[in-house]
Parts: sequence; C-alpha cells; structure tokens
Amino acid sequence: MAEKGNLLYGQSGGPTSVINASAYGVLSSALEAQKQGKLGKVLTARFGVQGILEDDISPLSAEQTERLPLLTHTPGAAFGSCRHMLKDYEEDETEYLKILEVFKKNNIRYFLLNGGNDSMDTIAKLDKYFTLKAHYDCRCIGIPKTIDNDLPLTDHTPGYGSAAKYIATSCLSIDYDARCYQKGRINIVEVMGRDTGWLTASAGLANIKDQAVDFIYIPESPFDTADFLNKVEALFAKKKRVLAAVSEGIRDQGGQFIAESGAKDAFGHAQLGGAASYLSSLVKNAGYPTRAIELSLAQRSFSSLASKTDVTEAVNAGVYGVKCALKGQSGQMVAFQREEAKAGYQISYVLVPLAKVGGQIKYLPPTMYDAKTASVTEEFLDYASPLIEGEAQPEFCLGLPLFF
Amino acid sequence: MAEKGNLLYGQSGGPTSVINASAYGVLSSALEAQKQGKLGKVLTARFGVQGILEDDISPLSAEQTERLPLLTHTPGAAFGSCRHMLKDYEEDETEYLKILEVFKKNNIRYFLLNGGNDSMDTIAKLDKYFTLKAHYDCRCIGIPKTIDNDLPLTDHTPGYGSAAKYIATSCLSIDYDARCYQKGRINIVEVMGRDTGWLTASAGLANIKDQAVDFIYIPESPFDTADFLNKVEALFAKKKRVLAAVSEGIRDQGGQFIAESGAKDAFGHAQLGGAASYLSSLVKNAGYPTRAIELSLAQRSFSSLASKTDVTEAVNAGVYGVKCALKGQSGQMVAFQREEAKAGYQISYVLVPLAKVGGQIKYLPPTMYDAKTASVTEEFLDYASPLIEGEAQPEFCLGLPLFF
Repeated sequence: MAEKGNLLYGQSGGPTSVINASAYGVLSSALEAQKQGKLGKVLTARFGVQGILEDDISPLSAEQTERLPLLTHTPGAAFGSCRHMLKDYEEDETEYLKILEVFKKNNIRYFLLNGGNDSMDTIAKLDKYFTLKAHYDCRCIGIPKTIDNDLPLTDHTPGYGSAAKYIATSCLSIDYDARCYQKGRINIVEVMGRDTGWLTASAGLANIKDQAVDFIYIPESPFDTADFLNKVEALFAKKKRVLAAVSEGIRDQGGQFIAESGAKDAFGHAQLGGAASYLSSLVKNAGYPTRAIELSLAQRSFSSLASKTDVTEAVNAGVYGVKCALKGQSGQMVAFQREEAKAGYQISYVLVPLAKVGGQIKYLPPTMYDAKTASVTEEFLDYASPLIEGEAQPEFCLGLPLFF
Repeated sequence: MAEKGNLLYGQSGGPTSVINASAYGVLSSALEAQKQGKLGKVLTARFGVQGILEDDISPLSAEQTERLPLLTHTPGAAFGSCRHMLKDYEEDETEYLKILEVFKKNNIRYFLLNGGNDSMDTIAKLDKYFTLKAHYDCRCIGIPKTIDNDLPLTDHTPGYGSAAKYIATSCLSIDYDARCYQKGRINIVEVMGRDTGWLTASAGLANIKDQAVDFIYIPESPFDTADFLNKVEALFAKKKRVLAAVSEGIRDQGGQFIAESGAKDAFGHAQLGGAASYLSSLVKNAGYPTRAIELSLAQRSFSSLASKTDVTEAVNAGVYGVKCALKGQSGQMVAFQREEAKAGYQISYVLVPLAKVGGQIKYLPPTMYDAKTASVTEEFLDYASPLIEGEAQPEFCLGLPLFF
C-alpha cells in the first residue's frame, strides 16, 4: 500500500439533519491528518457511489475547506447522495471492476461511506470484494446515518435525535394550537418510517412536558381501524381534543399499508393518500372536526432545530471513523455504545462488523411500546430523552440559517 | 367611570407564534399599572368573546403571573380563542346586552382584544355600542394579530414575521434536501393564505441566500395551470430540480379555487385535495418526480423559530395598547408605522381607528409581485426582510421548548 494513500468520503441514502455534521467530522479530521503528513488527498464523491462509478471525484476546494464548519448545520447531503445498490460480485462484477479502476486511478486507500442500512450493505460488499477478490488495499469504514434509527449493533443512529426533537416539538406545538378553540379537533400527525416505529414513537417525548400526544401507531403493531376510531372518539368526548401520531408505514392485520388501502378505497389513486389523510377522512365521516398533518421533509431537514447531542455525536462518528481507518481498520461501521454512567447519559464510539449491519433492520422492541393503549413505555422515554437534549446553535444571517 | 376600573384581555381568531407575546405585553404592563394603583383587576376571558358571553372571566392566578414570561414563546392562544362574529346591534342587540351585563358586573373599563380582521370588526362594533347606545364608559383597544399580514393601516401585523421566517427557512431546507439526488424533483410547497399572498410571497425570502424558490403563486393573481406546467417543466429540464410555493388560496381565471377544482376533478372529495397535492398530481401525470409539501399548522405555531423582531414588536404592541387605554383612548387599534431611518428598519407604534380596519383586507400590492415570472420583486424583499430578523431564544428543558 502506498504510504500516502488518498481518502474518499461519500454520502448515500436519504439525507438527515446531521449527515453533513458527520461529513464535517470526516473531512476536518482528514485534513488534519493530511497536514500531519499521514494522508494524501482528501476527496469527495459527487452523488455517492453513483459519482464513483462516473469518476466524479474531486478534492475539497479552498472555498469548501474554508466553509467546512457550516456543514455542521446544513440540511440535505452536501456532496450529493444516491440510492444505488450493488449486486453480489459473484453474480455481476461489472460495477466492481469500474469502481476498482476509479479507486486505483485516484489511489484511494481509505473509503468512508456515510449512510443507512443499504449503504452499509454496499460498503460491506466493496470491502469484501477488495479483500477477497481484487486484493486491493483499501480501508473501508461505514459512518452510520438514518433518521429511522433502524441500524443494528448501535445504540442509536446519527440523525435520529434531531428528527425526534423536531417531531416532539411539532406535536407539542400542534397540541398548543389545538387547545385554543372550545370546539376542539382530532389532529392526526403523519410521521416518516415505513418499516419501523422509532420516529413515530418519538412523538411520545412531547408528553414529558404535558399530555400532548394521545395515541401512537407504529408499523410493528398491526393497525385496527375500528379500534382506532373507538379510541379517538371516546377520548374526544372526554377531552375535546385528540392528537394521534401515526407512522406512514402502519399496516393492517394482513400486512397491507393503511395508506394504500385508504387511497384505493376512497380515491383510486395511490400517490395522495397518506395514512393520516386517510384516517382523517374516516374521522371526518364519523362527524368530528379533524386535520391531517404530514410532517414531511422537515423531519429530516429542519436543521435549525437539530439536537445538540445529535450534532456532536454525528461529528464525532466521522472523526472516529477517520481515526480507525488510519489505524488500519476495515470492514467496520462506527457504532454508539451507551455506557452505564452515574453522571447520566454517556456514549462510547466503537466499531462493529459491516457484514453484520448491512441490510439488517432493528425494530422498536415490544418493551418500548404498548399496543393496547397505543403509547410508548417509560423504557422508550428513558432511551430516547437524552438523544434530543441540547439545541444546536446554527449561524444566522439576515434572519435565515447559514448553510454550506 | 369608577376610578379603578378593571382591565379585560381576550384573544380571538386563529393563533400565531406571537399572539401570546402580545398577551405578555398587555398583562405584564397591566399588572405594573395595577401595582401603581392606576388599575383595578387584570382579567382574562376564556375563549375570547365566547367566554365573555358566558361570563367565563377570571383574574390572573398567582401561578399564571409567575409563569407570564413563558408566554413570549408559547404557541397557540393561551387564553383560548374563538371565531364568534357579532351582528350589528341595530339588527340584533341580544348579545350586546349580555356582554354589557358581564362588563358591568365585572366593572370592566378597559377592554383589549387581540385578533385579526374579524376581531377588529367585533371590537369596533362593541366600542360603537358602548359609546352610542349603552353610554357605558369602556376603553376599547384592538391589538393586531394575524400571520396573513392582511390588516390595513399598519405596516405589517404581529405574527407575520415569524410565519415568514418559518416558511423561508423551510423552503431553504427543502431545497437543500432536494439537491442531494442526481435525479432531482419538482417540490410543490403549500403555504397558508386563502385571500392574500403575503405568506406565500415570504417564501421568496429564501432566495436572498440562494436560488431556492423558483416560482411563487398567490391568490391575487389568477392561476393558469397550463402556464404553470410549462414553467416547471422547462426549468426542470435545465436545473433538474424545481421548488414552487403556492398559496392554498390560488384561483383560476373564473375565481374557482384550484384546490377545489382539483379535488372535484380527480377524486370527487374536497377535504384532502390541497392546491399542492393537486398540482403535484398533474406534475406526476406529466412524468416528473414530485412531492407535495403542506407546511400546515407549523406556519403559525412553530414558535421555537420565531423572529426576534416579531416577538419584540408583538410584546410592544400589547404594552402600547394598555398605555393608550389608560390614557383614555378608545375605538383604536395599535398599528406599526415604518419610519424613514438612516440606521435601517425602525417602527413607531401608533393608533388607527378600529372602524377603518375591521373587516377590511390588505392585498399584496402589484408592485411586490411579478405574475409573468411568478416571483416577488425587490420591493417585497426590502419590505419583508427586516421582519424575519433575529432569532427568538425560547427556554428549553429536557430538549423541548418550555411553554406557558
């Protein structure tokens, strides 16, 4: 291996409020290592693996380097992302050969890919290919990222805390808004999460202050429409307002998405019928004032209200990834390990094998959710509360946040 | 008039991020006046005029008084609101007699109503009734409030700046999110505003930083669907992503709401079809990747990102209202007058006659919007930029904002 190999950083999958904070961690510590003579060039791929396949790789410009700290509060994926999946190389080597060619040409000896389940699968496959087939020396390290919090072998994922903070704050604000009329309303808030309930569960954090969120419905627990209507109607009769948070991925007993069933039943059109819209139309037909609210992209992009804990950990994950790569580690993902600490919440950064992470899904455990009352348990609140702690302080100019 | 009459404060109409900041201004300065022996009790009505009609009026509790400063960052309408309209008293005196009875019983000699167009109409009518018919001595002062910014005789309204800041920040974040994929997307963001375009125009503030918002459509300008599709398709071909901000109240040449036409044409159901959903379905049918995003209640309730300018002015409007009432003014609304100042943006607080405000609507002037390019003009940006300046610093605890 060339002593001063180059480092390549890429982003992959859906953006989060803090994936660029991890980019900052990776790139700033890589530049530092470069200064110390431990590293060649610091490169980024445009649109992740897509960019690698097209040899769309470039060193950080002087302007980018100067503006690097702004990454810590910039939404989106600053270097571009993609959802490109690699086949097994035994099945089809074409893309692997292309990537190998680009890596060799650019003398890339350290590769850090920042992404979720599918991206960890991609880098795991590349690591395996480089090691077992191509015998090309390259340290492959995965930096976790997903608002869904569904990566295994890590206490949580960067991006989740900020999304959870936005969701809980929004629900709290929506409840305060609903309180203002004597008439009341049944608000149904739709939260992201097609397969797992971590995000929707975070709505329950709003209840630490006040009873703001009355019911929570997650994909892991079959959704019973009749029971839902009974619950909201009974509570509305008593409390005169109801807030239910539902995951976009809630399914009936048969595994069919509620959103899809709704879209088909009522409008014959799949695109518009979100789960909340559908349930809200049922509530309206039953004669109640109601509103469907889709939190939509803000969940993953409202970096102006990011969790400070999340931003800090996202940066640290990037820094730790570079450190491990330079030490010669490969085929690993940076993970968070929660420590038993008297002082409260504390995290250690560790490595876990990429092969055990890629393509796997971590569901919300049954001990964190009570299907009977449609609410989260104390165990969940204890788990999630520290993750939304602290407010990121983005720089503002002319009333708007400054981005990279 | 009894020398130590009591003061009543009520909220009315839809909430904003800062109506409670005005409540703080009114109540804290009323309590101060009370201490100085200038005022009797400080009372609030539950659910505004509705509460007055039901004699649901109470003095501030000790706990409320202690927690008063939290009002400056609390969404909703902390004392409850309503949308109750009064008929002319010549037509039907019933409710006026009831209100008069409650006012006399509670010795209310100062009445401050915090609301928008309809609420100013209500307090104008009450002032007229007290003066001309009942000969009941009561100082009636309106405190403006509406995210819609459509009150006449005032430079702008409290609530608008914070909503504008949220809308511009959201559009900027959504654009950064959209940049991350090579494939791109046509995002259609739906903004509140059934009659006027002030709110949707504020999306244009995002362009001060960057070209984030490509097209803006407002209710004042007839919406041409074919022209819209041509515009977004042409730009998408060039730029690979488009962000259009549309008002919920956009109408066709014939004055029919686009949202309604959409709902009827495609789904036969009015409730779900917002303007953005409908336009997004057209874009999808034309073969483009697209997403409809309704900013929904967050526009008026996301007080965690309120404009500091807006919060300050909302408090000041309340303080000034009490000051004027105690000086004997009546039948007036507090208004903002923008001063020609070398140092930049500067506001004076003045009074304008309620009779000239109530029920009137201030539209976005043609000089602030260019229908041909579907964008706002420099004149609008110069007008609106100062209103989103500064970040309110709400108190947080356990990762969530502290509310009243």
